[in-house]
Amino acid sequence: MTKDSQQRAAGAAAALLVENDTIVGLGTGATASYFILALVERVKTEGLRIKAIPTSKRSDQLAEAGGIELTSFAKTRRVDLTVDGADQIQRGTLHLVKGLGGALLREKIVAAASDRLVIIAESAKLVDRLGGPIPVPVEVVRFGWETTAARLAAFGCEPKLRWPKDGNEPLVTELGNYILDCAFPPILDPAKLEQDLSHTVGVVESGLFIGMADMAIVGTSKGVETLTLKTG
Amino acid sequence: MTKDSQQRAAGAAAALLVENDTIVGLGTGATASYFILALVERVKTEGLRIKAIPTSKRSDQLAEAGGIELTSFAKTRRVDLTVDGADQIQRGTLHLVKGLGGALLREKIVAAASDRLVIIAESAKLVDRLGGPIPVPVEVVRFGWETTAARLAAFGCEPKLRWPKDGNEPLVTELGNYILDCAFPPILDPAKLEQDLSHTVGVVESGLFIGMADMAIVGTSKGVETLTLKTG
Repeated sequence: MTKDSQQRAAGAAAALLVENDTIVGLGTGATASYFILALVERVKTEGLRIKAIPTSKRSDQLAEAGGIELTSFAKTRRVDLTVDGADQIQRGTLHLVKGLGGALLREKIVAAASDRLVIIAESAKLVDRLGGPIPVPVEVVRFGWETTAARLAAFGCEPKLRWPKDGNEPLVTELGNYILDCAFPPILDPAKLEQDLSHTVGVVESGLFIGMADMAIVGTSKGVETLTLKTG
Repeated sequence: MTKDSQQRAAGAAAALLVENDTIVGLGTGATASYFILALVERVKTEGLRIKAIPTSKRSDQLAEAGGIELTSFAKTRRVDLTVDGADQIQRGTLHLVKGLGGALLREKIVAAASDRLVIIAESAKLVDRLGGPIPVPVEVVRFGWETTAARLAAFGCEPKLRWPKDGNEPLVTELGNYILDCAFPPILDPAKLEQDLSHTVGVVESGLFIGMADMAIVGTSKGVETLTLKTG
């Protein structure tokens, strides 16, 4: 299967996990969009009753256009199930790197409020070590971002301010911050690194998602593979 | 001395610490304003050569109106000395609670970039334990703030969303966030609590300043008292 069809298969499989009368968190990105479209299909054909909390304007629009009822944290504190993509998934731990799409902060807030987080991806996203070729996105306050970048570099990375492909100004996230893409060598202790990053003054949130995912559904050349957290 | 004259004395004493050809961080609030005014006076009468980085629009305006040259982190990575107020100063450790004035995030970013942080206050701000009657302000992302508040409550506080005195909407900080005032019982381990708060998804920064202040200048009924960090 191509990357695209692996993503679609993972999204469709995740949509089957959604139950009636639940609150569903909607991820952001290409793979998450396949999930949303599969969910729209279930709402239309089966009359599936759900309410959704999107993690970006794009997912918001996609869901609303498909007739999915939206809700917000003003009305509910908890989300039953969130389905989202990832840029890297560590085998065994299901620790993640997320945020190349630019929505990491809303994604992390929705994930933190969710009873279950299911990650969908193509097989190329599965890795033994996070980091390496994929930078860890770190969302930072715009004020003084230069000093924040200097403090982040002390953790052994090269922070690069993210720019839009065709812009004269650095990319500003939906929540008004900058993103520093921090290239690390393969990360030996992602939990420790995540604590260090989140504890850095000026950092709003990092793209390391530690101990948050309960399951990964991965599209492979042989079909869909389900990974659950190894415990004990 | 009254509270007001204690603050003024502390601000004037701190202004004497500023040296020529340095970058100075300007705090925010009533006491910090006395420091800025004393600094303006030195610039005018002595021709003191400094550049300043303010922590709020108010301090920015006060400095600029007084003829202090401003700079920014686009031009400099480090600040030589920052002088700021605090809501509570713990004796011995000089750990702080800050942010009742609403500028904690910029204040913390400037403090983190400073070689020295000097805190100025009236004597009533000195305490043996932080917390208690004074809540710890926590700046949080607006999206999902309700779920962030629920997670903060698990640390043993009562988070209250801050409202302006005469507004129909919650207070929005200069950097576009909300503030949750978190009332804790007297805090036994402020360093641990600060780590827990900063590690909470949705939290941008807390008003606990741990190990950041090098000196406190406190106005008392008998004059100005200087406290330095007890080490060893």
